[in-house]
Amino acid sequence: MNERIDGHTVLIGLMAYPIRHSMSPTMHNNAFAKMGLNYAYLAFEVTNDNLPQAIDAIRTLNMRGSNVSMPNKQKVISLLDKLDPAAEMVGAVNTIVNDHGILTGYNTDGTGFMQSLKDDNLDIIGEKMTLAGAGGAGTAIAIQAAIDGVKEISIFNCHDELWENAKRNVDVINKRTNCKATLHELENEADFKNEIQDGAIYCDSTGIGMKPLENQSLVNDPSWFKKDMIVYDTVYAPRTTKLMSVAQNAGVKHVYNGLSMMLKQGAEAFKLWTDQAMPVEYIHDLLFSEE
Amino acid sequence: MNERIDGHTVLIGLMAYPIRHSMSPTMHNNAFAKMGLNYAYLAFEVTNDNLPQAIDAIRTLNMRGSNVSMPNKQKVISLLDKLDPAAEMVGAVNTIVNDHGILTGYNTDGTGFMQSLKDDNLDIIGEKMTLAGAGGAGTAIAIQAAIDGVKEISIFNCHDELWENAKRNVDVINKRTNCKATLHELENEADFKNEIQDGAIYCDSTGIGMKPLENQSLVNDPSWFKKDMIVYDTVYAPRTTKLMSVAQNAGVKHVYNGLSMMLKQGAEAFKLWTDQAMPVEYIHDLLFSEE
Repeated sequence: MNERIDGHTVLIGLMAYPIRHSMSPTMHNNAFAKMGLNYAYLAFEVTNDNLPQAIDAIRTLNMRGSNVSMPNKQKVISLLDKLDPAAEMVGAVNTIVNDHGILTGYNTDGTGFMQSLKDDNLDIIGEKMTLAGAGGAGTAIAIQAAIDGVKEISIFNCHDELWENAKRNVDVINKRTNCKATLHELENEADFKNEIQDGAIYCDSTGIGMKPLENQSLVNDPSWFKKDMIVYDTVYAPRTTKLMSVAQNAGVKHVYNGLSMMLKQGAEAFKLWTDQAMPVEYIHDLLFSEE
Repeated sequence: MNERIDGHTVLIGLMAYPIRHSMSPTMHNNAFAKMGLNYAYLAFEVTNDNLPQAIDAIRTLNMRGSNVSMPNKQKVISLLDKLDPAAEMVGAVNTIVNDHGILTGYNTDGTGFMQSLKDDNLDIIGEKMTLAGAGGAGTAIAIQAAIDGVKEISIFNCHDELWENAKRNVDVINKRTNCKATLHELENEADFKNEIQDGAIYCDSTGIGMKPLENQSLVNDPSWFKKDMIVYDTVYAPRTTKLMSVAQNAGVKHVYNGLSMMLKQGAEAFKLWTDQAMPVEYIHDLLFSEE
């Protein structure tokens, strides 16, 4: 038989809009096939308007769960039965697990980020992180890093619509974890440079540097970076962002784009659904074999 | 890429209970793959209780449609927006097509039966049919045959719980088609033999002869059959039923089990969803290659 889907196959969804161009279905279905797991992962165009009915469908069709992406990551919380503590602190869910009709929300963006470092034997526990951005990715990264034991996080943001979110992230971390978080204005260049130089890891979660703005970076001077630090850009298109080039010019050893985080957030969700490890190397090569 | 499911794949369902052992997912997914059509066909355990929510899910998840089987074929009718006239006359739906939120119900059991004969260049239009049984398959066969132009149908049934259904089928055919239907008692053996010998086709839709009752048949005397008639059993497990053996002993040329009807009802649904012909020979060989 060519096709692995049969009468026993269990559905897992991805509920977002727009979503048709997501790589997640290719990632998960190939991982299920490789592991001999009888699931099928399909994308569904779901907005805030039909999200309640879509969540009902998880129960009705006895789906194993779903990923959730923009614009549904916050709205979905009120529709679930249980919430993982980290997802509750992040205030966003990207993964739903259905255990016999009981839906639990998780956020694997932050755990995926932390796992991508662990898998390379890079330990930032007890260290200081400087983080630009307080959107979905930045919030998940900051909260999970704080939960996992990063000692100090300096969060930078412009005075834009995410400033209040940055304040909220700092408050949550300081109230509910042992990490010390501080809020900084991205407009203050001297402060920004100092905090980066003082940290073990600098992460840009703003999306600056993504196509079609691939010539932009918040940091343009290689002298801001130390060779032994980690520089992490959550962007993965282009594969080498302007920030990454600046870090490479500074001789920084550990420079990341967002590919690993993207794969690892998927692997964390995969594990929640199947209790199995995703074959990440295999999937990486399959997805990015043309490079 | 090994797996054909991507972010553009559209879901088609099969809603029934029990259903996990159905061959339909294997049939349709292999046909989609062969034809390069971006659909995935999954089975969902749906009973009358959660059928309304499952039908909602077709709309919410923008599924292309669904098959429906026991115990939902009648109950589903009240949940749809439109009904194909033949499905309305049969009083049962096995196929739903979703056109931008408008759900139309069809019944391809009857069209699949008729198509299986047409595909072998067997023409029963204007002829007389003798039919045993008035359950789901028997009703769909009788109504579709009458609609398509079979001249006369003699319906046999025991005085069991389907007797009223047999009466109803006869009434519907006589009132709404040009076919003349008559109701007969299966207990009247002489009448049964006469009607079979008077017809161009005898069809047993009762399921008698199916495992584990494979030694049973309503007709056990080969002299009841003529060589140039068609004998059609809707059972396909075993592949050669007792009825078929009796017909073969009589030298009947055109003897059918239910495989062709099963494949053709799928092909008719496939065409409604995709507007393409299912590669039936390919699917037949794939499903039954071990035989």
